[in-house]
Amino acid sequence: MKSSIEGFEEIIKASLGEIEVETLLENGKVIDVLTGTIRREDVAIHRGIIVGFGAYDAREVIDLGGNLLAPGFIDGHLHIESSMVTPPEYARAVLPLGTTTVVCDPHEIANVMGKEGIRYILDTSSHIPLNVYVMLPSCVPATRMETSGALLTAQDLLEFRDEDRVLGLAELMNYPGLISRDPEVLEKISSFSDMIIDGHSPLLSGKELSAYAIFADSDHECTTPEEAQEKLSKGMYIMIREGTGAKNLDALIKIVTTKNSRRFFFVSDDRNPLDLLGEGHINQMVKRAIEAGIDPVVAIQMATLNAAEYFRLRGLGAIAPGFRADMVVLDLLDDFKVTMTIKDGVVAAKDGKVLVEIPVHRDDRGRGTIHIRGEGLLERLKMEGSGTARIIKVVEDQIVTEEIKEEVDLDAGIPVERDILEIAVCERHKGSGNLGLGLVKGFGIKEGAIASSVSHDSHNIVAVGTSERDICDAILGVERIGGGQIVVRDGKVMAALELPIAGLITDQPLEKVKEKLIRLKRAVEDLGCRLKDPFMTLSFMALPVIPQLKITDKGLFDVTRFEFVDLFV
Amino acid sequence: MKSSIEGFEEIIKASLGEIEVETLLENGKVIDVLTGTIRREDVAIHRGIIVGFGAYDAREVIDLGGNLLAPGFIDGHLHIESSMVTPPEYARAVLPLGTTTVVCDPHEIANVMGKEGIRYILDTSSHIPLNVYVMLPSCVPATRMETSGALLTAQDLLEFRDEDRVLGLAELMNYPGLISRDPEVLEKISSFSDMIIDGHSPLLSGKELSAYAIFADSDHECTTPEEAQEKLSKGMYIMIREGTGAKNLDALIKIVTTKNSRRFFFVSDDRNPLDLLGEGHINQMVKRAIEAGIDPVVAIQMATLNAAEYFRLRGLGAIAPGFRADMVVLDLLDDFKVTMTIKDGVVAAKDGKVLVEIPVHRDDRGRGTIHIRGEGLLERLKMEGSGTARIIKVVEDQIVTEEIKEEVDLDAGIPVERDILEIAVCERHKGSGNLGLGLVKGFGIKEGAIASSVSHDSHNIVAVGTSERDICDAILGVERIGGGQIVVRDGKVMAALELPIAGLITDQPLEKVKEKLIRLKRAVEDLGCRLKDPFMTLSFMALPVIPQLKITDKGLFDVTRFEFVDLFV
Repeated sequence: MKSSIEGFEEIIKASLGEIEVETLLENGKVIDVLTGTIRREDVAIHRGIIVGFGAYDAREVIDLGGNLLAPGFIDGHLHIESSMVTPPEYARAVLPLGTTTVVCDPHEIANVMGKEGIRYILDTSSHIPLNVYVMLPSCVPATRMETSGALLTAQDLLEFRDEDRVLGLAELMNYPGLISRDPEVLEKISSFSDMIIDGHSPLLSGKELSAYAIFADSDHECTTPEEAQEKLSKGMYIMIREGTGAKNLDALIKIVTTKNSRRFFFVSDDRNPLDLLGEGHINQMVKRAIEAGIDPVVAIQMATLNAAEYFRLRGLGAIAPGFRADMVVLDLLDDFKVTMTIKDGVVAAKDGKVLVEIPVHRDDRGRGTIHIRGEGLLERLKMEGSGTARIIKVVEDQIVTEEIKEEVDLDAGIPVERDILEIAVCERHKGSGNLGLGLVKGFGIKEGAIASSVSHDSHNIVAVGTSERDICDAILGVERIGGGQIVVRDGKVMAALELPIAGLITDQPLEKVKEKLIRLKRAVEDLGCRLKDPFMTLSFMALPVIPQLKITDKGLFDVTRFEFVDLFV
Repeated sequence: MKSSIEGFEEIIKASLGEIEVETLLENGKVIDVLTGTIRREDVAIHRGIIVGFGAYDAREVIDLGGNLLAPGFIDGHLHIESSMVTPPEYARAVLPLGTTTVVCDPHEIANVMGKEGIRYILDTSSHIPLNVYVMLPSCVPATRMETSGALLTAQDLLEFRDEDRVLGLAELMNYPGLISRDPEVLEKISSFSDMIIDGHSPLLSGKELSAYAIFADSDHECTTPEEAQEKLSKGMYIMIREGTGAKNLDALIKIVTTKNSRRFFFVSDDRNPLDLLGEGHINQMVKRAIEAGIDPVVAIQMATLNAAEYFRLRGLGAIAPGFRADMVVLDLLDDFKVTMTIKDGVVAAKDGKVLVEIPVHRDDRGRGTIHIRGEGLLERLKMEGSGTARIIKVVEDQIVTEEIKEEVDLDAGIPVERDILEIAVCERHKGSGNLGLGLVKGFGIKEGAIASSVSHDSHNIVAVGTSERDICDAILGVERIGGGQIVVRDGKVMAALELPIAGLITDQPLEKVKEKLIRLKRAVEDLGCRLKDPFMTLSFMALPVIPQLKITDKGLFDVTRFEFVDLFV
């Protein structure tokens, strides 16, 4: 426990019962992740710290009505940006779900704002009732095939090394760079070799995985039991991910045993606002794990102690003297539903409602990050020529795409009737005028256009539409709202979600975002689109590390051949 | 993994199989503490690091003949001084037993030499094939009722905080000081609150234990399952101790389950040379735990990974890429006997024999620590008076004593015929002339005297004998050999073990110590003593924190009343 000597004295007195403690949680059943048991126990809290068990004189007594009391849940890897809200608003969303600690990787905002983006997340999360730890983005920019807003060198990252809430290096996506001994990658690893290094190595195996596992302490990209088992045996902690796009719990939970469960914990990675408000967060993963046959105490260990141990977060992850009083009450009779969240000894949420003040300080950083070259945009969006074209084929619910080839005559216009649409990626960090143009099939849009400044990983503006006029309107519309997602038709904005912070985050509450997302979805449907999540699909069109055919502000990119290609064969 | 970037490059190449690895361990069955399984696996090693599994071109191939391969064993808490040998000699003794890492508390030598004692242990253990980590002695002197050779303040300890192999604060014995908010104790805790703080709180429970557990991360003093269960639930790791004096495995192993086993690990605390060479070390505890019904993989986790996690020793405690190549081979057919120890990738011991050079650098620190006031010693040892005397009663095999009262007439001589002997504690750090005199019953010595400079915790010279003449000879004998243990009769030394380093440690090998200890034991038996371990019994006579009646250089001490008392009632 960290404190001043005076603080120690008071805590000791409270623990001994020499003074009244602040709070006593009575009549609860503690899920004890340390002994691996559940037992009837009263819990005394003072100054935000658990100070003892049993009978205490307390200023406030809270009756838990025989319900279960567990440590607060920990999300071991996520990008807060994916929730589209600020850290305080994120806290407001997840506190009622029992989450009291998150370890985030500000990868998205760092791709736009660089060091200032990391600083923004640290600052805006410093005084909220949610423990927000930061892993430093290891791969900004994600690739050299696109224009990002920033570049982070090992030297840049070192500036954050000694921050209290910085734990290490976030997902080391550049495993090919490590395996090929890229000096930049080695320098980053060397700079953080005594801290935690999160891995990210989908499908890597054999000797290449061995080489990678020497440095990477974990992985959150496992999709099969075999992949997880190999990574586990090679020393990596397995983060079981249930994101909006990628759901791995069902596959991975099969290999969890009481003899290896300590090496597993839960993460959400990317969870969009609708999912957070719908399915939930780590609470849902606990429930799912128990349904899959995991012992409830073990499931709670995976949601608490295991992540705390991996990240060496002393004082988090268990209910015992000296631990932070971050706890959740679970309804025994209602499927482990979270009914109360206690944060630093205070009831922060009850029955789905946040009961504490969450300070939001007006912070103007991140505003005005949209810089496009508007002159002649309409002209530059014009596509010409005819022949056999390489077309990006959308794969529903997947971030991969296919490449198909079809005959097109662009001089006669975009062949919307064959569901072939224009796709454009407009560089928006430096106003360079970079503009990548291509064709895409599968959106089903019959009129108008959509555009978004959320576009992994460099977050340029990506737009899909039926004509250069509509696309131009959509891109300029995104610029006008200072970043965000938009649906346009006939020169009119049909729906929009403003994301004025880095073009990724709103300053509105999550419920507001939800409303606007629903309106956006309906507006896209009105254009004829039948995709389940068109803006998510859109946001991965510009990610040139996921096969097959992608597009960046620098042009069409064939991921398998790993080179830029022309539109016409 | 810590290394230079050049080092990284070579390790990656080796791991990928692009260059020949140094060593391949073939045909072994890996006890995988990470997956909780045992599997057939070849293990590749390069530059002392495990770099991969499977087929590799290797400079050297070692066939394990189908035997088990486990991570090297870790002893989580011990005083190397109790083995009476230097760290290099200690390594020579435990390597064949499979121990590759120890976490030691130089409490004994620090009581004699202060900071220089800690430095001595750090320096002499820095280049040996055994990982020696140090926890800083938190309670020097152990009490104010005796004269120690040194005093260590929080400030003194802080000087060692940033040493590579220093992990935190060793056993915080002064739990009464913590509970009463002694400012010195709080300052020490505050100085190390972000590091590991080992506990030591025999029988502490309830609210006092809660207050203590807020700060102490572990305990090695549990003697009953109930005590261990309460400490476990209060957040303390349980160190299961099998020392020479205190053996707790049988009692504690009962509460270990696969859901809580990660919070247990093995320690030896104090193991004398005869036990190390006889019963063994952590290897014996593994065997005992398995015999007690613990799953072999879980037993190995307790001997390896669990301690590594508690002490946050990355790269230790498992067999996986990036981990140090510290491993043991266990004979499947012969009761898990250790047949080979691999340290940093090299076969360090095989079939009980050490195969590597263990560098011993001549180090003169610690010599000449015996300073007594010799003048008039014989006169000052003379006891006089008659009446009802308080007599220390030895309890066989225990470090507690009883107080009995008997009529004595010392003017007529020591009543040796009733087995009442003189006991003296002679201050030996500062030559102050402090001399505590008392009577003791239970040694059974009929002629001569014995003396020792190993005398917990201040290590003054303690002697028991049949006359002041014999006691004087014994004390001066210990001085003459520069510290050690001695048996005298009729002015002649019958047997002696020289401990010239701090009066605690010899520069001889463990086998030599064993020989001399056996000779000492026989010599004491020749004097009539029937105690199982007379020098151990002797060494606890001056420890004024263990009940009932003890004696220090300042006089007779009643531990229950916690005050000095007169000989005669």
